[in-house]
Amino acid sequence: MKNIDLSAEHDITARAIKSFAQTPNERLRFLLQKLVTHLHSFASEVQLSEAEWFQAIQFLTATGQICDDVVRQEFILLSDVLGLSMLVDAIEHRTSGEATQSTVFGPFYIAGMPDREYGENMALEPGSPSLITGYVRDESGKPLAGAMLDVWQTAENGQYSGQDTAQPHGNLRGRYHTDEQGRYAIRSIVPVSYPIPTDGPVGSLLDACLRHPWRPAHLHFMIDAPGHRRLVTHLFNDDDPYIESDAVFGVKDSLLVTYEPRPAGHSLAEQFGIDEDFRAVSFDFVLERSA
Amino acid sequence: MKNIDLSAEHDITARAIKSFAQTPNERLRFLLQKLVTHLHSFASEVQLSEAEWFQAIQFLTATGQICDDVVRQEFILLSDVLGLSMLVDAIEHRTSGEATQSTVFGPFYIAGMPDREYGENMALEPGSPSLITGYVRDESGKPLAGAMLDVWQTAENGQYSGQDTAQPHGNLRGRYHTDEQGRYAIRSIVPVSYPIPTDGPVGSLLDACLRHPWRPAHLHFMIDAPGHRRLVTHLFNDDDPYIESDAVFGVKDSLLVTYEPRPAGHSLAEQFGIDEDFRAVSFDFVLERSA
Repeated sequence: MKNIDLSAEHDITARAIKSFAQTPNERLRFLLQKLVTHLHSFASEVQLSEAEWFQAIQFLTATGQICDDVVRQEFILLSDVLGLSMLVDAIEHRTSGEATQSTVFGPFYIAGMPDREYGENMALEPGSPSLITGYVRDESGKPLAGAMLDVWQTAENGQYSGQDTAQPHGNLRGRYHTDEQGRYAIRSIVPVSYPIPTDGPVGSLLDACLRHPWRPAHLHFMIDAPGHRRLVTHLFNDDDPYIESDAVFGVKDSLLVTYEPRPAGHSLAEQFGIDEDFRAVSFDFVLERSA
Repeated sequence: MKNIDLSAEHDITARAIKSFAQTPNERLRFLLQKLVTHLHSFASEVQLSEAEWFQAIQFLTATGQICDDVVRQEFILLSDVLGLSMLVDAIEHRTSGEATQSTVFGPFYIAGMPDREYGENMALEPGSPSLITGYVRDESGKPLAGAMLDVWQTAENGQYSGQDTAQPHGNLRGRYHTDEQGRYAIRSIVPVSYPIPTDGPVGSLLDACLRHPWRPAHLHFMIDAPGHRRLVTHLFNDDDPYIESDAVFGVKDSLLVTYEPRPAGHSLAEQFGIDEDFRAVSFDFVLERSA
């Protein structure tokens, strides 16, 4: 083993940090100088080889090239499986004890989906029926009229409409609104667990690490109400086998719900015109006041 | 300011690290667990916001999408301007005091370029003539016959053939070989400084940071000889205005050379059939023995 002179390495890091010193935007300067610091610290600690560096270059290039403008966002997936998305979520959405916790946004949201009536069925194809009801409240417990719940979930084949172009437009997506009493009601189907896309670089990565690609069954919510902070979250089926090992680390205990079996003759069935056995969830969302 | 509970953040990092624990390849497991550690440590230290995270997602996506299979490799450029490429080079190519220092490979190498005779002119279009001569030696000073010098540089418009499709095939590229005395001789034109491509995400980044995109004039070498480690390096024109501020941090003092003016009648001119004033460089490369 030779006597190794590390001064060259330290010198490169110092020069790269200094090169950003004239950045006019102070926050950007801070971010880039810290990025260089941590990136170089990673490469030095692991003594990254040129072959490994080049594999990383090829991996990142392929990750960019599989993205499309519609539903495939492989860099978000990469961020998700590295736990970065949930970390950023935790940094951004530090909630008080009362407010509903947030979780990852995910890459499958589509804006501009149909407005839905109170209790309208957003499942445009057959499936195991469900009913999700509850209130949107503020932190003092007061129900919020005029809140909007933008909701999305996969079909029973594990794919979202848009991603799966065979599904009708707007299937299992829609914007619900609370009524004057602050109540919402969503008719849908029971969510299923599904794998994140595995035919790209992120799938290969999980494969090489013997990590499964499954997400536990969940229903996505993005909830807005005047004067309150937007809430992006999921409700997770508490009996899902992947609850403990979500591929994207999105599960929080407070977001687990039970889909309770209800017979066709149940009072709720009558109220919402459901003519078969179904499963019901009751959950109240609590929004924080805007800063 | 609220009392902030950081336990959620620490918990996410721990879970993400643990998720890679079953990776069969030990080196890959180490790299990914350290990557998660440093990436999360960066995001936590700077308290990365969702908006900033999403800007990064968009930046990386665009960086992948501007790459092509021929000469555009924007992720290498990104690695270059962050100083990562030179850091990896320093880690990989720790040389003893005697051997010639290495520098970045860059994204513009093309394999399979023409073999050139001793002293052949690789400039297929007019320009300011140059002659580069010297020995390839081992660490004891012994000249090495049978060494190959794969050489490339830009034309006077600052573009490489291949990148600039208007240039003839193989212009300012070629594979030279040392003769029986271990000598090489390259006729070419004097290199010029040039900007790295600025029409992509990396150009926008430099712009936002008031960093210029220029590289000081240089001639690329990749040198192979039996029994010796490959050397990838440049020779830099020592009078270039960007010597102190190379956009990719590639300059090392030991790689500076002077292009000395020589009159048309000089003895070298006669030897190599140069019929005008030219500039001459003499440089000996020293290769390390293979491990």
